[in-house]
Parts: sequence; structure tokens; C-alpha cells
Amino acid sequence: MKDVVDHPLERIVFFSDAVFAIAITLLVIEVRVPEVAHGAGDVEFWRALAGLVPNLVGFFVSFGVIGAFWMGHHRAFSHAARHSPRIVGWNLMLLGTIAFMPFLTAFMADYPGARVPASLYWGWMLLTSLLNLRVNTLATSPAMRSAETTGDDIRYVRGRGISTICASLVSLGIAQFEPFLGPLGMGTLPLWRQLFCRPRRAGAPGAPA
Amino acid sequence: MKDVVDHPLERIVFFSDAVFAIAITLLVIEVRVPEVAHGAGDVEFWRALAGLVPNLVGFFVSFGVIGAFWMGHHRAFSHAARHSPRIVGWNLMLLGTIAFMPFLTAFMADYPGARVPASLYWGWMLLTSLLNLRVNTLATSPAMRSAETTGDDIRYVRGRGISTICASLVSLGIAQFEPFLGPLGMGTLPLWRQLFCRPRRAGAPGAPA
Amino acid sequence: MKDVVDHPLERIVFFSDAVFAIAITLLVIEVRVPEVAHGAGDVEFWRALAGLVPNLVGFFVSFGVIGAFWMGHHRAFSHAARHSPRIVGWNLMLLGTIAFMPFLTAFMADYPGARVPASLYWGWMLLTSLLNLRVNTLATSPAMRSAETTGDDIRYVRGRGISTICASLVSLGIAQFEPFLGPLGMGTLPLWRQLFCRPRRAGAPGAPA
Amino acid sequence: MKDVVDHPLERIVFFSDAVFAIAITLLVIEVRVPEVAHGAGDVEFWRALAGLVPNLVGFFVSFGVIGAFWMGHHRAFSHAARHSPRIVGWNLMLLGTIAFMPFLTAFMADYPGARVPASLYWGWMLLTSLLNLRVNTLATSPAMRSAETTGDDIRYVRGRGISTICASLVSLGIAQFEPFLGPLGMGTLPLWRQLFCRPRRAGAPGAPA
Repeated sequence: MKDVVDHPLERIVFFSDAVFAIAITLLVIEVRVPEVAHGAGDVEFWRALAGLVPNLVGFFVSFGVIGAFWMGHHRAFSHAARHSPRIVGWNLMLLGTIAFMPFLTAFMADYPGARVPASLYWGWMLLTSLLNLRVNTLATSPAMRSAETTGDDIRYVRGRGISTICASLVSLGIAQFEPFLGPLGMGTLPLWRQLFCRPRRAGAPGAPA
Repeated sequence: MKDVVDHPLERIVFFSDAVFAIAITLLVIEVRVPEVAHGAGDVEFWRALAGLVPNLVGFFVSFGVIGAFWMGHHRAFSHAARHSPRIVGWNLMLLGTIAFMPFLTAFMADYPGARVPASLYWGWMLLTSLLNLRVNTLATSPAMRSAETTGDDIRYVRGRGISTICASLVSLGIAQFEPFLGPLGMGTLPLWRQLFCRPRRAGAPGAPA
Repeated sequence: MKDVVDHPLERIVFFSDAVFAIAITLLVIEVRVPEVAHGAGDVEFWRALAGLVPNLVGFFVSFGVIGAFWMGHHRAFSHAARHSPRIVGWNLMLLGTIAFMPFLTAFMADYPGARVPASLYWGWMLLTSLLNLRVNTLATSPAMRSAETTGDDIRYVRGRGISTICASLVSLGIAQFEPFLGPLGMGTLPLWRQLFCRPRRAGAPGAPA
Repeated sequence: MKDVVDHPLERIVFFSDAVFAIAITLLVIEVRVPEVAHGAGDVEFWRALAGLVPNLVGFFVSFGVIGAFWMGHHRAFSHAARHSPRIVGWNLMLLGTIAFMPFLTAFMADYPGARVPASLYWGWMLLTSLLNLRVNTLATSPAMRSAETTGDDIRYVRGRGISTICASLVSLGIAQFEPFLGPLGMGTLPLWRQLFCRPRRAGAPGAPA
């Protein structure tokens, strides 16, 4: 019992994992069974599924996005060794933006090609990435990080956070002109990571305690 | 395995965390995608979203409220070191009130400005805060608290519990006259905490073992 | 990591807790916001809520029932120290019956007073209590129980399991005549526990290793 | 806190358990209460339930399938002792296919006997079993497995993975001719396990470190 109850940090990690897992699994509720006339042939079924494509794309894009935020959270908190009360509120706000994603996914999927839902979706992603950067920076801040955390670890976590912000901005920009193509912005993520996540040369100064 | 299975306290904490996390994430199910004519312009989308404002406010208020109850639970149980069978039933009742909140949130959001749903919502919050005080007081009672728990810790937990009761009462009162403005009552929370959560002067007697 | 990954027992306990927590929280989804004319007065709201009474009763009865099964599971597994592959399938069947309860709760609540839904609900409860007895008996069997488990512990777990079966039978019987009153059968639970959960006299022989 | 936060492997196991548990419990949401005239007799209720049979079969088949994938995951990760970043993405893809199953279950259940939904369901199961084999093979690969893992353990995990692929193929084949009978393919699982999960003779060479 010690392990959980004594360490408020662990309960936060646990609670966050649960919210990420529930939000990612609830996405499927918004993919509804299409209506097909009973006794219809295969062609009609495939046509009905074709009409579901935006919902399916929405499911998988949001699954990947929430999964990526979870992976970043996971990585940042693997460096944390102490609890700081300052992270609780920010983390709860981050979880709130994650928990809200199933709604925005459904909204965008139900009106494919419409600018407002797509802008909301990618704008919300931008807000989520800002909170994500804040939370992950706090988790690797001097108040929380373990003694083994290196300067490269911290730069990597920060670099990932900034990359997600940049990719969200690109998606939001694309969605203004071609709402369908918003997800392409996420494809620029590796470029930003290339730019922001490079470790310093070994032996470079500046590793924190 | 020891850690979990030997310690019924840990399984209660775990189960509670899961129920809090599920209830907080299920809130989004009650925010439904608005109906907009296909091919509609941006203005119609924004208008449809404006009609969703009560649901969005409901989502975020309840997210904050459930999050705050979770934080209080988290804080109180961080002082618990032993299991007491007496807490199981009370904790289950508290979780029942939390699990029921998505319904009351949707009810209030679907009839914005109506007195009955708002009164139910804030009355339920009052019931939840009473159970919350009971559970958190038990978690810091002599039967459960760790040896390191100080008198200030106990007063703080109790003070937070009483503050939430007071804020719920204010919200319930406001909702009788202006159901829209119920959430403002929650804004008085810092005042009550100022009043009830002040630590005693250092060196004051009364710290429990 | 050791603690979880090395011990298949812990993952089963964890997975079970999660299914119990999700099933208990999903019950609220079946309580739907009633339809009230916009601008209606308080009386109409109270009338609409009166129509929801069967759903509210269903929510709280099933919340209590799932909570009670969770508590029994919790208690039985607190005596387990080793994993046995034989428990996995039975435990999964028990979780299946628990996960199905939100449907039966909604069915009974939507047709209050109808015999078939009520019989299904209480018959299902009987099936659940049989699986519950099987799982909890396995968890306290020689293959799984810890060295500290006493004969009284085992008799208590078994006695609780048998009591739940008896109470389900009474509810099922009542529901044949007066479907409304099925929950009353659960009220006989303390009597059965009185009968089946009495510890042997201290010093009596038969405590297992 | 050490136990969780220091070990990214444990958070992956935890997150996976949560997604499995939520997906398995969400299946019930797709079983909807049938419409029966109020005041109808028992016969009409039984008739309405007969119409639900495909949904009930779907619930229990998918419950068993997701449960079996969870058990395989559970077994494979019980041999893992170290984290490998390569597993994260594959595991997330596996969880994505699991989380999507409630939709395919509902689709198949709403159009019983139709070839397209049944083919999608069993084709998806095939995809899931391929990812399952990949993830479980990685979990028992030299990069992740504990020193105590034997060659038989590894062959067993791999054999189970291959068996599930074979059974999915049989179900997919059957569904092309008689969509109703797809679940029978799963009945061949014990045969494949007989074939692929046999341990080598004791003392045979090839046990990995």
C-alpha cells in the first residue's frame, strides 16, 4: 500500500493513465452503425461504409493523437521522482482537453470538409499541446525530476512538446483552406522533432542536477 | 503482488480512482454533436455551437467539480496507512454520487435556466460534499491515519471538506433565484478555505499521534 | 515493475477492478434526461422526474449490487497469495456477467412492473452469484490462499457467497408475483449472512495451512 | 512511486489493461433495450428478446475474444522484464484494433447473416491477431524478456499467437459462405493450439538466455 498511498505522484500518474485510456476507447462510441436496408446486397454495405470514412478517419487520427499525448506524458513522468502540488491543476486541465476530444472528433467527422469543426478540432489540439508542454516541463522541472535526469532528457521532452505545438499550428493553418487535409499537418511532426529534439553533443555543459 | 493484494486500502484507492476517472471522462458523452444543414456556412456552425454553450459550461464545471473531489480524496488518503472496514460503505456511497453526476450535468445543460434541474444539481453536490467530508474524515481518523499525520493535516482535510459544503450551499441558494448563476457559488470556495483551512500556529498543542 | 509484471495474480485483480469500476459507472448512461417542454414550470419537471423513478431505483440498486460483488471479490482476493491458471476463465465469466448488468438494469427500468425483465434481472443475479461463489472459493482454495488465511476467513468468504445466492433466489421468487418488489429480496441478505457467516468458536479445529 | 514511474514497461501494461477493460465493458452499450408495447404480456417480451439474440451472441463472442487477447497479452508480458521503445507503437496499434471492436460487433449484430459486416469482423480479428503476434513476440524477444524465460515459454506464446491467426482465417473463410456461422471458426482454436503450442522435449537444445 505504501507505494500508492504514500506517493501522490503515483496516484496522479494512475489517474492520468485512466483518463487517457477511457478517452481513447470512448472514441468508438461516436462511430455509429450505418443504416442499410435489410436484405441489401454487398454493394450497398460497401457504399454505407464509404459514407463512414470520415468517422473512421476521425477515430484513427484521434486514437493516434491521444496515444501520442499519452506517450509524451509517459516519457516526461518517467523522469519525475517527486510530487509538486503545482502540477495537479495543470495536469487536470490537460486531462480535460483530452477528455473533450471525442466530442470534437465526432463533430468534425459528422461535417467532413466544414471549416468550423475542423478549425475547432485543430485549435483544440493546439491548446492541448500548450498544456502538454506545460505539464511535461513541470514534470521534468527541478522540483520534480529525479537525480538521474540528464540535460538531454529535459531537452528531448521539451523538444517533443514544441514539435507537437508546431504540427498543430500547421494542421490548423491547412484546415483554414482545405479542412479535409488537416491531418496532413501532423505528418510534419518528424521534421519538427528533427529540429527540436536533437541531443547536445556528448560532454557539452549544462546537465542539471 | 503483495503490494496490492495484501492491502485492501490500496484496492479501495485504486477502485475509487477508476470510478472518478470514468465519471469525469463520461461527461463528454452528454455533449452531442449539434445538427447543422450540410453545406451550411461558418455562421450557422457558430450559431449551432452557441446553442451548445450550456452543455459546454456543464462539461467544464462538472469536470472541475469531479476533479476537485478527486483531489480532496487523493489528499485525504495520502495520510491513510491502514484499512478500516468502516470506510468501504461510505466510500462506495461517495462514488455513487460521483458516478451519477453525468446525468445531472446533462439534465441541467438541456434545460438551462430551469430551477428544478439546477436545484437537483447543486443539492446533489451538497450531498456529495457531505459524503466527501465523512469519507475524508474517516481516512484521517485514528483508525486509518499514518503516524506522520499532523494535527494541521487533519484540520486541513476537514477544512477543505467543510468549505466544499459551504460553497455547495451558496450555489444551491443562488440557483433558487437565478439558476444560470449557480456555478458562481463555487467561486466562494477560496473564501471558505481561507476561513476553515488555516493551520494552527506552529507549536500549538493538539497534534495527534 | 516487478510487482505487476511478475505476478499474474495482480494483473487479474487490476483488470477485475477496472471492469467492476467501468460497469458500475456506465449504469448512469442508461438514465436518460427526460423530455420536458421548454419554459415548463417546476411541477412539470417534478412530474418528469417521477417518471424516471424506476431508472433511478435501477441505477442505485445495480450500483449497490455491483459494489457488493466488488467488495466480495476484494475480500476473497485479499487472502490470495499465489496465482492459479484455473481462476482466469471463471473470473472472466464473472466479469462478463457484471459487464452485462447495465443492459438488464435498463431493460427492467424501462418496463417497470413487467415480469420478464425483472425475472431476467434477478435470474442473472443468481447466475452472477453462482460464478461469484466459484471465483471466491477458488481465490481462497489451497492453490491460491496465503499461509495466514484462517479457516474462519474461508468460511466467511464462502458464507457471503452462499448468502448472495439465497438473497438472489428470494428476489427471483418475489419477482414472479410482484416484479416491482424484487429488490426487497436483497433485504434478506443480513439474515442469510447471520446464518452462513458465523465464525466457528475460537480454538475449533479445522484451520487450513 | 518508484515501481510505476521508473518503469515505463509497467505503465504500458497498465494502460493496455485499462483499454482492454474499457473496450470489453463498452460492448454492452451496443445492446439496446428492445421496444415492447407497455402492458404487453410475457410472450411479447420473449419475442423481443429473441430478436436481440444476434446482439447477445455478439456481446458474448466479443467478450470472449477480447478476454482471450487480454489473457495472451497478460501471459506474454509476464515474461517481460525490460522496456523496449520498439513495442510502444505496435502495442498502441493492437489497442486501437481492440478499441474498435465494439463498433464491428454492433455492425455484425445489427445485420445478422449479412456477408460484409461478418467479413469485416473476422478480417479485423485477423488483423488484430497479426498485431497480437507481433506485440507478444516483441514482449518475449531478447530485448525485453526476463532471464528466467525458457525456450518453451517463448514457443508457447508464439504458438498461441499463430493459433489465433489460424482460427481467425477459418472464421473469415466460413463467413464468406455462411456469415452466421463465423464464430464456429473460433472453435478450432484448441486444434491449432494442440499443433503449435506443444513444448519441446525436456532437455532439447535452444533455450535462450
